[in-house]
Amino acid sequence: MDIATLLGLVVGLSLVIGAIILGGAVDVFINVPGMMIVIGGTLAAIMVAFPFEEVIQAFVAAFKMFQQRKTKARDVVNIMVKVAEISRREGLLALENVQTENMVLKKSCQLIADNADSQLIHATLAIEINGLRRRHQVAQDVFKRLAALAPSFGMMGTLIGLVQMLTRLDDPKAIGPAMAVALLTTFYGSAMATLIFIPIAAKLKARTLQEQLNLEIIFEGAKSILENNNPRLVYEKLSSFLSPSERGE
Amino acid sequence: MDIATLLGLVVGLSLVIGAIILGGAVDVFINVPGMMIVIGGTLAAIMVAFPFEEVIQAFVAAFKMFQQRKTKARDVVNIMVKVAEISRREGLLALENVQTENMVLKKSCQLIADNADSQLIHATLAIEINGLRRRHQVAQDVFKRLAALAPSFGMMGTLIGLVQMLTRLDDPKAIGPAMAVALLTTFYGSAMATLIFIPIAAKLKARTLQEQLNLEIIFEGAKSILENNNPRLVYEKLSSFLSPSERGE
Amino acid sequence: MDIATLLGLVVGLSLVIGAIILGGAVDVFINVPGMMIVIGGTLAAIMVAFPFEEVIQAFVAAFKMFQQRKTKARDVVNIMVKVAEISRREGLLALENVQTENMVLKKSCQLIADNADSQLIHATLAIEINGLRRRHQVAQDVFKRLAALAPSFGMMGTLIGLVQMLTRLDDPKAIGPAMAVALLTTFYGSAMATLIFIPIAAKLKARTLQEQLNLEIIFEGAKSILENNNPRLVYEKLSSFLSPSERGE
Amino acid sequence: MDIATLLGLVVGLSLVIGAIILGGAVDVFINVPGMMIVIGGTLAAIMVAFPFEEVIQAFVAAFKMFQQRKTKARDVVNIMVKVAEISRREGLLALENVQTENMVLKKSCQLIADNADSQLIHATLAIEINGLRRRHQVAQDVFKRLAALAPSFGMMGTLIGLVQMLTRLDDPKAIGPAMAVALLTTFYGSAMATLIFIPIAAKLKARTLQEQLNLEIIFEGAKSILENNNPRLVYEKLSSFLSPSERGE
Amino acid sequence: MDIATLLGLVVGLSLVIGAIILGGAVDVFINVPGMMIVIGGTLAAIMVAFPFEEVIQAFVAAFKMFQQRKTKARDVVNIMVKVAEISRREGLLALENVQTENMVLKKSCQLIADNADSQLIHATLAIEINGLRRRHQVAQDVFKRLAALAPSFGMMGTLIGLVQMLTRLDDPKAIGPAMAVALLTTFYGSAMATLIFIPIAAKLKARTLQEQLNLEIIFEGAKSILENNNPRLVYEKLSSFLSPSERGE
Repeated sequence: MDIATLLGLVVGLSLVIGAIILGGAVDVFINVPGMMIVIGGTLAAIMVAFPFEEVIQAFVAAFKMFQQRKTKARDVVNIMVKVAEISRREGLLALENVQTENMVLKKSCQLIADNADSQLIHATLAIEINGLRRRHQVAQDVFKRLAALAPSFGMMGTLIGLVQMLTRLDDPKAIGPAMAVALLTTFYGSAMATLIFIPIAAKLKARTLQEQLNLEIIFEGAKSILENNNPRLVYEKLSSFLSPSERGE
Repeated sequence: MDIATLLGLVVGLSLVIGAIILGGAVDVFINVPGMMIVIGGTLAAIMVAFPFEEVIQAFVAAFKMFQQRKTKARDVVNIMVKVAEISRREGLLALENVQTENMVLKKSCQLIADNADSQLIHATLAIEINGLRRRHQVAQDVFKRLAALAPSFGMMGTLIGLVQMLTRLDDPKAIGPAMAVALLTTFYGSAMATLIFIPIAAKLKARTLQEQLNLEIIFEGAKSILENNNPRLVYEKLSSFLSPSERGE
Repeated sequence: MDIATLLGLVVGLSLVIGAIILGGAVDVFINVPGMMIVIGGTLAAIMVAFPFEEVIQAFVAAFKMFQQRKTKARDVVNIMVKVAEISRREGLLALENVQTENMVLKKSCQLIADNADSQLIHATLAIEINGLRRRHQVAQDVFKRLAALAPSFGMMGTLIGLVQMLTRLDDPKAIGPAMAVALLTTFYGSAMATLIFIPIAAKLKARTLQEQLNLEIIFEGAKSILENNNPRLVYEKLSSFLSPSERGE
Repeated sequence: MDIATLLGLVVGLSLVIGAIILGGAVDVFINVPGMMIVIGGTLAAIMVAFPFEEVIQAFVAAFKMFQQRKTKARDVVNIMVKVAEISRREGLLALENVQTENMVLKKSCQLIADNADSQLIHATLAIEINGLRRRHQVAQDVFKRLAALAPSFGMMGTLIGLVQMLTRLDDPKAIGPAMAVALLTTFYGSAMATLIFIPIAAKLKARTLQEQLNLEIIFEGAKSILENNNPRLVYEKLSSFLSPSERGE
Repeated sequence: MDIATLLGLVVGLSLVIGAIILGGAVDVFINVPGMMIVIGGTLAAIMVAFPFEEVIQAFVAAFKMFQQRKTKARDVVNIMVKVAEISRREGLLALENVQTENMVLKKSCQLIADNADSQLIHATLAIEINGLRRRHQVAQDVFKRLAALAPSFGMMGTLIGLVQMLTRLDDPKAIGPAMAVALLTTFYGSAMATLIFIPIAAKLKARTLQEQLNLEIIFEGAKSILENNNPRLVYEKLSSFLSPSERGE
């Protein structure tokens, strides 16, 4: 469980809701037609903007983000060094038995064990890494687009409310509340974007960069193993991927 | 028929129109001169901004998007494996008879069958892929530009309305409705961009990325077939383009 | 004559002017000091922002755009195939006599005829293409900058007007008209950018992409001719630059 | 101590606070719930947007920036020339004893002394440089995101305040102060971004560029030493990294 | 002296000041605390955002821009052809005596005369060109950042003024002037950015592109001279850098 992410979401929402409660009259901030325009409109537009499967994938990716712990670069380096040791000791064929959840690492080991052409291995891993990057990119794009659409629908709702208010200015007392209602959709759109969509898009990006780094470590490690570098040299090279504090001794 | 896209458009429009109807007085939201400035102005400016044929092509591309089902990456991989099997079993010459709607695949098969120089095949396919990307890019650019122009014309209409209103403030009762009318063009521009142009531009982009992926699969597949890889290796390599869930068993 | 561009400009302007006339009191929209700030200021700032020759070149390029017909990619492919046929039939030396307005094509033919080193030909054409791209880019940049400066000067004029109005609020009747005048400069800036500068910048970009495509066709064609490909293969390769509908039968 | 940075921060804050004090009534500008929304919300959202360690790293990097003096490119050139002299006089093995705080320089010397394959040295240094760039990039991204989030939360606070004010317009005297309070959060968000987050993000970027230049000097220097260039030629090449005024003699 | 730049600055300022004078009451536009926030704040923030030397260098670069005439691409081509003639007639060694202010040209001649390895010459010139580009980029970045900071400080000043005004609405007559004063800082920030910082940043960029072109001409020329091309071929190649109108005969 990624607690920092969840905590951030909860604290952010609490602060905003707290400010509303402090000001009294919470019910003023609830306007069902306004919510329908902003939430419904944003979801409808995202369905037009992306293929249906990609929208689903993006939400699944965001949901998984809260569940999964991310793999640290340091652990990936250690695994690759271990793989190098196995291949040294027991030969390349032994790599077929390496157990791992990481698809790219698995494919690497399998291709090395199959004694595949080194160029084919490189090409295959490059395609694999690009594919992962492309799929992650789509999830980010969906949330970035949501973050841009929500305030637009909010502004549209406010424009509708203002036009309606301005056409019946008979009762001066009604102007204030009507304007308050008109502003609500802008608030909804802004809150959805700032509190939810923008941070999730950013976190998905951060995760992608981390994943990509891990794949690059696997890629460079597999190259080194193929060239039959000894495990110490593999470590020496891969540790360059880590920050000084991660290298330990 | 791409139902999600159509549904998104209809739901989005319904929500906005619903909110207008809920507020009563629908006729307030209809202002023909305002519509002329925003819709007419946006179309006029897009004619200046792009060559006439490209504007037409963009609208045709957007229209086709609702009609055609997109080809899935998985199907392209399967086709390429089948092509590899044919070339293995019956020789490269047999590829001349491959039946396909995909122009790039057809050209690939033809060039391979013609026993063309492998470098020429690569160069030709690269040009073909770049051409497709360029033509798709233009359609996106047209809709992105429309999405930027519509709100600008909306704001211009509002400025004209405000200036006209401010120069005759004699009747205080007329201020409200006059300002409502002035705001309408901003609403039109914003609605056109948010509900229609931005999502269509985004979907065209998503489609392009998918098409491009398919072409890359064909490109890599053709390369493998030329190098006479066996079908199993072709599959092994091309399946790296697919997401884990698409790979099947 | 590029009629679509001209028509777009005229229709866009007519719609805006029409909306002004429909609202009566056209003279309200004419404010000479306001025009001086927006038009004069924008022109003055563009003189600081770009070397004088580049500003002139940009306006010349925009003016030429209305006059010249653009060369279609299809025609360039046909010309290159014809050149290939000449070189096949009469030898490379015959290319010296190829008559063409296109400078890059002329230089290509001349260099081939001079029996220059193939690498020198590539380098020279690459420089030529980059140069053309750079010169076109400058014209776009000038109009993009104009499109950004005009609204800024418009806003500055409005700020000046608002400050002047706010310091003498004695006569409530004068507030409306004074504010209308203040808003006019924002309108001028917005109209100049939306109706003129942005679309022209976009069209210059579209033209550049077209020109660049033509140069790439010449570049690839010249390469093929040097390698002594036969005209049919030259066509096969160059036709990949065309859209399916342009290829004809 | 980087005095210019600190001075800039202090002077900027003083000018803004001074303007507030000059206008009397400082207490009007202090609104605890408003601060909680803007500061708290921004911090909560940054926790969602980035992994916890990266947020901490970014603040550590910003803090270090005030403490450390930056290494000048000229000094790095001098060090590399000195290293070249040592390797010339005492052989490559002597590089093992080079004392330096710079991790990349240390690794370079060690790899050269180990008589490692020249390609391995290049690959390792390239990974090391990319890693440093990636880690620096994250710190900039955190502050850029903070600079974008703070005004968003400010605007959200203002929207909440406006809605609350508009729903109780009974007492006309209360409108002014209530609106002042609503505007405060926009002010907080704008001040945090303009005075703190944007400049720090920019300075982190400037520092990264400087660091990167230093690493490139080390990289090119190590390459030259491996190719056994004499120290004069190493200087000749590396001095090209310096500005004319830095070259002096 | 670059007269167009100076003229643009003077005319732009005159138009804005003229519009202020035309509206009477010039003194309304002078507000010392407001100027302090905008000018002082912008300068303070730029000190945080960039290392002190880089800010100074940027202002020096902007100042020099008004003084120096720029070197035309055509002249650089002519010089390189002349250098090629010298090297042809008197041998590469004669290049040591070439007199020029251009540092890169000087270094090129010296390296050629030293009979340095051709790869070393390329590497050195590439570093030199990148260094120049990096130093120019910094000056542009400083002015771009100033152009972004000035309006931000302007808006902050206006927010402070509005909050102060809204908390004392006792005297309705004071509202107008107080709001005018509040708007002044927005005007200052906008004027500084639009009239000064943005155009200077743009001109610095235009100059950089020109300088870079000149360096590329020198780079390509030096390459050709090393390969012992004859002066006519050097001209033929380098003239491709010039626009058709510059080529003349």
